[in-house]
Order: sequence, then structure tokens, then C-alpha cells
Amino acid sequence: MFLDDISFQNMYTGEMKQIPEPARKRLVLLERILENYPEKNITSLKIQNLTGWSSAVVRRDISYIGVSCGATNGYRVRELHHTLRNELYDFSEEKKGCIVGLGKLGQRLLDTTELYGTPFKIVAGFDSSVNKTEVLSSSFPLHPTPLMKKIIADENIVFALLTVEREDPQETCNLLIDCGIKKIINYTSTILSVPDEVKVRNVSLLTSLYLLS
Amino acid sequence: MFLDDISFQNMYTGEMKQIPEPARKRLVLLERILENYPEKNITSLKIQNLTGWSSAVVRRDISYIGVSCGATNGYRVRELHHTLRNELYDFSEEKKGCIVGLGKLGQRLLDTTELYGTPFKIVAGFDSSVNKTEVLSSSFPLHPTPLMKKIIADENIVFALLTVEREDPQETCNLLIDCGIKKIINYTSTILSVPDEVKVRNVSLLTSLYLLS
Repeated sequence: MFLDDISFQNMYTGEMKQIPEPARKRLVLLERILENYPEKNITSLKIQNLTGWSSAVVRRDISYIGVSCGATNGYRVRELHHTLRNELYDFSEEKKGCIVGLGKLGQRLLDTTELYGTPFKIVAGFDSSVNKTEVLSSSFPLHPTPLMKKIIADENIVFALLTVEREDPQETCNLLIDCGIKKIINYTSTILSVPDEVKVRNVSLLTSLYLLS
Repeated sequence: MFLDDISFQNMYTGEMKQIPEPARKRLVLLERILENYPEKNITSLKIQNLTGWSSAVVRRDISYIGVSCGATNGYRVRELHHTLRNELYDFSEEKKGCIVGLGKLGQRLLDTTELYGTPFKIVAGFDSSVNKTEVLSSSFPLHPTPLMKKIIADENIVFALLTVEREDPQETCNLLIDCGIKKIINYTSTILSVPDEVKVRNVSLLTSLYLLS
């Protein structure tokens, strides 16, 4: 499924403890907001002001994770944040990922520091050019594409950053799905066709601009 | 509002000819798929296979733009694509954008070729360091941040890529909103608070991973 997409069925059958997908997305963003929120308490009205979601929607969303609002003081921020993290994510183990495509875009992601201190870690890079995988330097190993299936299985890699530039993104995506990958961050402008159980987040500049249009 | 978010109100009051927001997002992605679709006709069932949306949802979405399905042959691809573009986007004029923050991330976007042949064009870059705006080379002018309000007005800039690294993303976002910007692609991991009429698309690696989790 497209992560950008909310199908109407999902609203009633949503996975993850029956939290509907739109509510789950709001809760993920709320978790991010609360991480650095400086106050001790926060009301649903304050959340409304911060996010634009109505306070009624906010209260209902939060009720899905079994937290209810104090009568006047709203929610205790640290407690709400803690519960959100526990309900939304499985932090019991590190989530490993790989970069697929080591052109300009993939190379830029080789030295990202954005994931330090998070449960996510990039542990491998792949490119069809052996020249690239041998010459480029990185804190994790770079492999030629034919080794992808073995490395993804051996390393227990669960997400992929799709950054191919010359290869067909859909073909590479199919290959990743064959390897068991179910979460793909798509840096290409191609809209990928994927089975229901695979989630794609489109982050290319062009797709983003179209979605904002 | 967060573009990642679908509030329940929107489903009934949605802007843009009353197309509900979730349907509009699906239609945007469908337009992207059809752009290079090689066949002459496409059925809602075929779209279901490509996207994971149920064929009933697909047919209802498409009915919002006044196109109905042929009895057995489905939709004529070029006609459907043309109508989607006209209904979803205003292509009558170029949409101009700017890059805000010229650290590593902003610099990478200076020479993007992704927008060639599209209605979107980046026409300015901003950074608080005059050193950077003077030394970096780019096909469009780079300006120190204090000129932002004037340049955005003069150039009629409507979207911004937020790529600040040392400045506070929320403060820079507030500045952009002051300048009249209503569409922001947020490359930082900070979740921004924005008024209802401002749309944000979060594309940072970390936010994307959380949303996929």
C-alpha cells in the first residue's frame, strides 16, 4: 500500500491494535512533537493549536492508546509520550536498513548522522557497479547488487532507501520485495506498484510538490 | 495542516471541488502512474492491482473528477490522465520555490535536475551566512536571509524547501509563513507547527522511518 494513501477500508479494519491509519499517523507526529515539548502538561486544545487537528479528534486519537484526558490540566506530557512510543513502535530491537543505489543521492545518505540515537541503523549499501561499491567509503559495507538477497537475510535488514538513478526503480523495488523488504523509502520520482503488505513512503522532491499542489 | 494527516473534517468539507483529501492524494498518485502508462486503456481492477486500492474506491475517486468508467474496457488512459492533470493542478503558471538553508542538505538540492520539464522551478536560495550565499555557485541567485521577505514577494515564490541545519526549523518556518509561503517541504526531522492553511510535507529520513514503523 502507499503510505500516502488512506483507503476507506483501513478506517475500520486498521492494523496495529485497531488504531485507524489516519489516527496512527497523527499519533506518530504527536509523539515527535512531544519528544522535545518543554511543558509538564498539554491540553488537547494546545495540541489543536500546534497541529491544526481539532481537539475532539486529538482526544479520540489518544483514547485509542488507552490514555484519557485529565479534567482541566490535559495530559501529562512525559507519560503520554512514553505510552505513545510503547504503543506505536517496537523498540525492543534495532531496525536495520540498507541503501540501494549509490549514485549522487545514495552517496549523500552514506554519511547521514540523522539516525544516531534512534532505533534505526543503516548497515549496508548496494549498487550494480562493483567499481562504486569498492571505491566509495562508508562506515558500513557496500556490496554489489547480486549479493543483496544473501546480505538482507543474513543481516536481518527490514527497510530500504531506494536511491537508484540509472536502474528502473520498479524493477529494483520488485527485487527488494523478493528479498522480503516491507518498508521502502522511495527517493525516486517513480510511483511504485507494491503488494498490500509493503509500505512505501515517497520523499522525492517532485512527488512531494505534486502532493502539495 | 500536516499533509501527512487526514483530519476527519476534511473528509466532508475537503477543499478543491469537494474532493476529499484522501481521494485527492490517491488521484495525485494515479496521475503520476498514468503519466508513463504504456497501454491505451486501464480498468479499475488493473489500478487495484497496481496500487492496492480497491477497485470500488478507485471508481469512486475517479468519479469525483467527472470521469466514468467504460462498461468493459475501463478508462481511456490519455483522457483520464489529461483530466486528472487539469482537475488536480493549476498548470497555467510556473510555480516558483526557494531553498532555505544552504548547508550540506540545501547544497545538494542546488543542482537538482528533478524539476526540469515540470511546472515547478527553484528560483532562489537563502542562508543566514553571507559567506555561503557569496561563495556557493548555483543557476539561480542566493541571498542572505534578511532579504527573504522582499525576494519572496518580488519573485512570487509559493513553495519552500526547508533545509536549515543550524537554525531552529520552527523559527525559520515561522519566518516563511510571515513571508506568505503556504507549501513547505520539510527536510528537517523537526515536526513543524503551522496554521491550517499551510501545508507541510515531511520528507526527512527519520520522520519517514517513524511514519513507516
